[in-house]
Amino acid sequence: MITLTPDPLDRERFPIDEWALSETSYDADSAGLTETLFAIGNGYLGMRGGPEEGYGWHANGTYINGFHDTWAIRHAEEAYAFARVGQTIVNVPDSKLIKLYVDDEPLIVGEAECVHYERILDFRNGTLQRDIEWRTPSGKHVSITSRRMVSFTDRHLAILEYEVTMLDQDASVLLSSQILNRQDWVDEYAASADAQPVDDPRKAAAFSERVLQPRFKRADGSRFILGYRASNSGMTIACGVDHRLTTDNDWTESSQIEDDLAKQVYAVHAEAGKSIKLVKVISYHTTNSVPTRELADRCERTLDRIESRPLEDAFTAQRDWLDAFWARSDVEVPGHAAQQQAIRWNLFQLAQATARTDGGGIAAKGVTGSGYGGHYFWDTEIYVLPFLTYTSPDVARNALRFRHGMLPAARERAAELNQRGALFPWRTINGLEAGAYYAAGTAQYHIDADVSHALSQYVSATGDEDFLIRDGAIDILVETARMWADLGFWREDGTRSFHVHGVTGPDEYTTVVNDNLFTNVMARANLRAAVRRTRGLMQRDPDAFRAMASRLHLHEDEIVEWSEAAESMYIGYDEDLGIHPQDSQFLEKELWDLENTPPSKYPLLLHFHPLVIYRFQVIKQADVVLALLLQGDEFGGDVKRRDFEYYDALTTGDSTLSASTQSIVAAEVGYRDLALQYFNSALFVDLSDLHHNASDGVHVASAGGVWNALVFGFGGMRDYLGTFTIDPRLPEEWESLTFRVTLLGARLRVRTESSSVTLTIEEGASAKVSVCGREVEVFAGRPIRVPLLVDDSPTFEGAPSTSDIEGALRPDGSVITATMPMITERYDETDTPPLAE
Amino acid sequence: MITLTPDPLDRERFPIDEWALSETSYDADSAGLTETLFAIGNGYLGMRGGPEEGYGWHANGTYINGFHDTWAIRHAEEAYAFARVGQTIVNVPDSKLIKLYVDDEPLIVGEAECVHYERILDFRNGTLQRDIEWRTPSGKHVSITSRRMVSFTDRHLAILEYEVTMLDQDASVLLSSQILNRQDWVDEYAASADAQPVDDPRKAAAFSERVLQPRFKRADGSRFILGYRASNSGMTIACGVDHRLTTDNDWTESSQIEDDLAKQVYAVHAEAGKSIKLVKVISYHTTNSVPTRELADRCERTLDRIESRPLEDAFTAQRDWLDAFWARSDVEVPGHAAQQQAIRWNLFQLAQATARTDGGGIAAKGVTGSGYGGHYFWDTEIYVLPFLTYTSPDVARNALRFRHGMLPAARERAAELNQRGALFPWRTINGLEAGAYYAAGTAQYHIDADVSHALSQYVSATGDEDFLIRDGAIDILVETARMWADLGFWREDGTRSFHVHGVTGPDEYTTVVNDNLFTNVMARANLRAAVRRTRGLMQRDPDAFRAMASRLHLHEDEIVEWSEAAESMYIGYDEDLGIHPQDSQFLEKELWDLENTPPSKYPLLLHFHPLVIYRFQVIKQADVVLALLLQGDEFGGDVKRRDFEYYDALTTGDSTLSASTQSIVAAEVGYRDLALQYFNSALFVDLSDLHHNASDGVHVASAGGVWNALVFGFGGMRDYLGTFTIDPRLPEEWESLTFRVTLLGARLRVRTESSSVTLTIEEGASAKVSVCGREVEVFAGRPIRVPLLVDDSPTFEGAPSTSDIEGALRPDGSVITATMPMITERYDETDTPPLAE
Repeated sequence: MITLTPDPLDRERFPIDEWALSETSYDADSAGLTETLFAIGNGYLGMRGGPEEGYGWHANGTYINGFHDTWAIRHAEEAYAFARVGQTIVNVPDSKLIKLYVDDEPLIVGEAECVHYERILDFRNGTLQRDIEWRTPSGKHVSITSRRMVSFTDRHLAILEYEVTMLDQDASVLLSSQILNRQDWVDEYAASADAQPVDDPRKAAAFSERVLQPRFKRADGSRFILGYRASNSGMTIACGVDHRLTTDNDWTESSQIEDDLAKQVYAVHAEAGKSIKLVKVISYHTTNSVPTRELADRCERTLDRIESRPLEDAFTAQRDWLDAFWARSDVEVPGHAAQQQAIRWNLFQLAQATARTDGGGIAAKGVTGSGYGGHYFWDTEIYVLPFLTYTSPDVARNALRFRHGMLPAARERAAELNQRGALFPWRTINGLEAGAYYAAGTAQYHIDADVSHALSQYVSATGDEDFLIRDGAIDILVETARMWADLGFWREDGTRSFHVHGVTGPDEYTTVVNDNLFTNVMARANLRAAVRRTRGLMQRDPDAFRAMASRLHLHEDEIVEWSEAAESMYIGYDEDLGIHPQDSQFLEKELWDLENTPPSKYPLLLHFHPLVIYRFQVIKQADVVLALLLQGDEFGGDVKRRDFEYYDALTTGDSTLSASTQSIVAAEVGYRDLALQYFNSALFVDLSDLHHNASDGVHVASAGGVWNALVFGFGGMRDYLGTFTIDPRLPEEWESLTFRVTLLGARLRVRTESSSVTLTIEEGASAKVSVCGREVEVFAGRPIRVPLLVDDSPTFEGAPSTSDIEGALRPDGSVITATMPMITERYDETDTPPLAE
Repeated sequence: MITLTPDPLDRERFPIDEWALSETSYDADSAGLTETLFAIGNGYLGMRGGPEEGYGWHANGTYINGFHDTWAIRHAEEAYAFARVGQTIVNVPDSKLIKLYVDDEPLIVGEAECVHYERILDFRNGTLQRDIEWRTPSGKHVSITSRRMVSFTDRHLAILEYEVTMLDQDASVLLSSQILNRQDWVDEYAASADAQPVDDPRKAAAFSERVLQPRFKRADGSRFILGYRASNSGMTIACGVDHRLTTDNDWTESSQIEDDLAKQVYAVHAEAGKSIKLVKVISYHTTNSVPTRELADRCERTLDRIESRPLEDAFTAQRDWLDAFWARSDVEVPGHAAQQQAIRWNLFQLAQATARTDGGGIAAKGVTGSGYGGHYFWDTEIYVLPFLTYTSPDVARNALRFRHGMLPAARERAAELNQRGALFPWRTINGLEAGAYYAAGTAQYHIDADVSHALSQYVSATGDEDFLIRDGAIDILVETARMWADLGFWREDGTRSFHVHGVTGPDEYTTVVNDNLFTNVMARANLRAAVRRTRGLMQRDPDAFRAMASRLHLHEDEIVEWSEAAESMYIGYDEDLGIHPQDSQFLEKELWDLENTPPSKYPLLLHFHPLVIYRFQVIKQADVVLALLLQGDEFGGDVKRRDFEYYDALTTGDSTLSASTQSIVAAEVGYRDLALQYFNSALFVDLSDLHHNASDGVHVASAGGVWNALVFGFGGMRDYLGTFTIDPRLPEEWESLTFRVTLLGARLRVRTESSSVTLTIEEGASAKVSVCGREVEVFAGRPIRVPLLVDDSPTFEGAPSTSDIEGALRPDGSVITATMPMITERYDETDTPPLAE
């Protein structure tokens, strides 16, 4: 684990602001990092935070979710059913460029003498602003302010404002606003690969030839549209820009359009004090195959619409959208401004990665970079979907619809792998498996259970049965259950048990094993969910069941088979250690000597051959521990603690997916300080570039993990099959923690203090939750406060033994004010308290 | 297993001839196969058997052992220490071409109307001859005879004779003799890849750009020399040809030389009955880096030398060389002409693959094709070296010297893999690991033990201690023992045992496992050999020991460590089944349903994803069973039989390395018919193209396996640490089997009949062997006949209970004629018979 100083950011350069990330000086060496940290996007369109002037960038990307090209994966040694179709997100034509020349001297941020510099990513306004005072080589002072926005309300829209004012002397000012289709994909990454002698599998594969074929160009006054078709995927894109210059100075304009460049140049005789303001309105439209001419028209319509209204409307709409976002999603940690800022930065990234994916997926880097090739992983379902399910269920539904749309390809992939049912790709953009290294790719069959888990969680939390039945998402449960029933096999070994062999769990430092605990536990839940949902439907709506059964050629015997497999699923347990082995051979392996592994050897994957790593007990990321979280109701408290203790000591945290999970389970089993350390490791993973690759884009799953750690870890919320429980683990240093979750349509604010939990309905009518074992129902306008008993012993238990629940209603409608005993055993519902009746 | 008809060849087309492979008609569809079957070579230079006229070929290759180019392996997903340097044998400039035109009509074998056609690969003359009578489109009859030879005595030399005679009418005859540097590497293989939708990992990787850069050309009369440099490896090659035309007809000549083509054209006014004979003398020289101008001079010298003597001398030398080869290597199965022919074809292939490798390795395909990229594998040590060690020890020594030369690269590779000592590459040409798929490549750590095994066997069989000590081959034992001691680890689990985890055994359908039986057993032998040899040296020659210890930084403690590791090596045993598990989890896996796998699904590797295959108990090739052979003295007879029975039922034989081993152990444990079936599967693997890829080149390891099956299987010879034993298992159908082995410098002929074994010294003074448990010493000029007791029960035991040993000498010098009891328990030497005292 990475140990952090209490506040790992340089506050001189990045002053604390609870609602913004701001920067007071530019550092060319960390351009890659800040391009990521200051990136803006809406889940569909993303622009990295590089300077408008276009120099000194690291990977000056503009990305559109899912806009990719394909390439033939060439395996150095081929084998049957290896992934064939490489998919890589494309750096689309760059429309951010506005080059500035003052007396023919270019402004190159990073080299220029800046008397003043400030860059602000504003979490409430949803804008990136920059304010520079530049002293030109000849000593003239120029003020340059810019504002950049990618709209949450109109996903095809971005707006740039760029204002230049000569402060003390007149000058000739030239603004060259461009759309540039960069044909330097290769160089861009080759450059960073050169800087890094060991190839890094976490980066995007580089294209070796032209990706975007020019198909369309149109210039009309100060409006340009360029259209392209991706060479292999056939996807099409159009980018349109329009310009409006406002100044009291004299000026002339000229323009130019080529296949890979459209340029609008304003030459201004700038008088001191007279500002020059350029507004650049940008629209991108993309499709799988629609001709670019048609996309160009769509761009025109977007541009026309913006032109027809006051520009400020767009910014107001952005603010309104974010106000609503924060109202349902904010998490507050008062008194800890640095953490508060980082929390909001992470939540803002979740908004930027997911808000307008609409029919698309959620990439590992959102739309902030090309890391992992723009691919979708289980990150979506396990790390990001909880946040969406509990704060923005509509967005969660979209993400699950997208996954549902992959079912045909997943069926084909299962057949290729000789399995029945469906096998979702480990990593993909277009639905086909793109993971070329099967041991840490295709072998992660648990993706099926992850998807099912997220779907079950979504339905439990929202009650959206329609999605399951009418939209057919239940097919996911059926086809994944089929896969498990077929993948596993029965063994008679004293008892009859169901085993799953030859799979890789979440821990990619241990691959292709038998009976991986996480996989078996998640597969069991998957099978049970399929049994429960299909049988439930059979009883509730036989016609709908028959329709589904006919569509899926489902026979009732199959459901019996799933149930048997689930209930006989092999769950290993080591009696001597009193823990669950990660897989059937894990505990027999030699222990990696983590203590004597120098920091320079992390992450291990960049310094050791996989065979070396696989030979040892050493863990990249939470595996058993993640099972303890996701299927926590299947494990007793003592074994949870022993499991955590055993595996935590072996965990390198070389994956950014690890820290948040370790934090949550550490909190649950009583390691309060450790939980906070892990939390901070997740919280600052990008802000402090803890994994040295934030330049490739935001670690979106980690951002999701931050929310999970806050809500599930410190907040102590769980949702097992729609039973919402809260058992907080507030860090000692924190006075309070407030989060919001939307449960069955009602938004509940949960405020935890050291001595109580206060529940308030912010939207909707009521919500039922169990706080520290006691069920309460909260109604709008009637907050409830549940006192907690704080245990100050070093091993934090957190379970109160008695409690006052103020504000709760009795069944007869009267309000409780008295103190009553509380259940001390968490999750034990045998002794139902009167309140819950 | 593949079940064969008794004689799987079409005898109309391939008539039986015990000393030749002949063909009576040409079939264009099987051109790839016959190019391989009729290929000629000497271990250094190889020419596939395509027609001189150059049309209708499949992969008209000419190969020089080890002449390769390199390329950067691009892994679809990278990881640390993955193999980086791809190596592929180069199809060198083709000097075989002699195009023939009669009245401007080209002779295209396969399309032409051949009144007579015959092609003969002559095992005693070492020539490929062809005899055609062609009826031209205009109805003229032409006789064309050719003879081709790649010299065993002069490895740089090949000779082509090409004779044309108009039989009935005059005609204009044109002969165009060429050296052609084919720049179509890609097309050649792309074409066959197209025909095969699933990529086949057994083929060579195709080059994507020009490999040979022209560096030199010289024309002098009818002599041409072209020189090239390989683009990346920097290896250089020159090819020189000289021509001599003999005819009574009128003729003119012309020539032409370009970068990729040299051409000598003879235009002859051919009168009926007057022959035209063209002799083309060819020389190739190659080096790692010597300038081509220098190589050209070497070619000139070869050509000059041949020119200076009668041409027939070269053919006589070839015959003499082969007479000697057969004298020391032939195996006779009288009365079974089809098998005899196939046996000699296989032995001839061994000669062609190994005779003049000199300082080079022995590739999987010898010099007959580009399959497996021209790489060297363990095939050399385990499948080919026994033949060489016991019949051509000088060639064996060369092969081991070549391996010894790889030690520096193997040390570096071990370090890359975080191991001490040396780790030989799984596949390579230049010493660097070229195996891009580590699970079935680098993970086969057993390569170290295989090399050590072959070295120990060579030293035991030859007594060549000089090679071990003076030439330093003992370093191999030390560095490999180091690797094992470091790779494994100690576990306390009741008893203290030494385990080797995360390796792949010979069976490539089961990868990256713990405690693979073969690996552990072979590693133990490797460690023991290192202990024995280093301690032996310490006692016998302390100075030499000190020199070695100093060179290798070897401390005596290390030897103790090896010994402890060896003696505590974990050897799994399953009490219930009474067998040795192939690895620690093998027996827990599901059984593959081989019975219901249709033939079209073999080999499994071309029809199932590795993850699917790995999940089951299913075997590509002998693994435990190979351990039973190589370390047979470590296993009791009963468990051997049970192991064989268990694993034989799971073995697909998808590797051609499997059949010969299964045959040997089947013979040993009593499955006489099965042994013969397996033997035939190995014997005809190429001749009947049983694995459908003989077109890629001869399966040289299988050819070695044929000799092993004859000598170790039916002949029943074993050599455990220099103790030579013979316990025959003659197939019921065979009257006798005669083979020769050279033991400690003496050549022993062993003739087994159903009732006796006759031992004769053919060269040298004497040899000691144990026949069916009884030690005998054979002297030159005094053959010994040991009677056998034949057991006709279905379970063949083969051990005689009593015997006459005729001809043997008593210690007092008198000759034994009487009958005496024999030991029935094989390999049990506790009851030493008086004869051996």
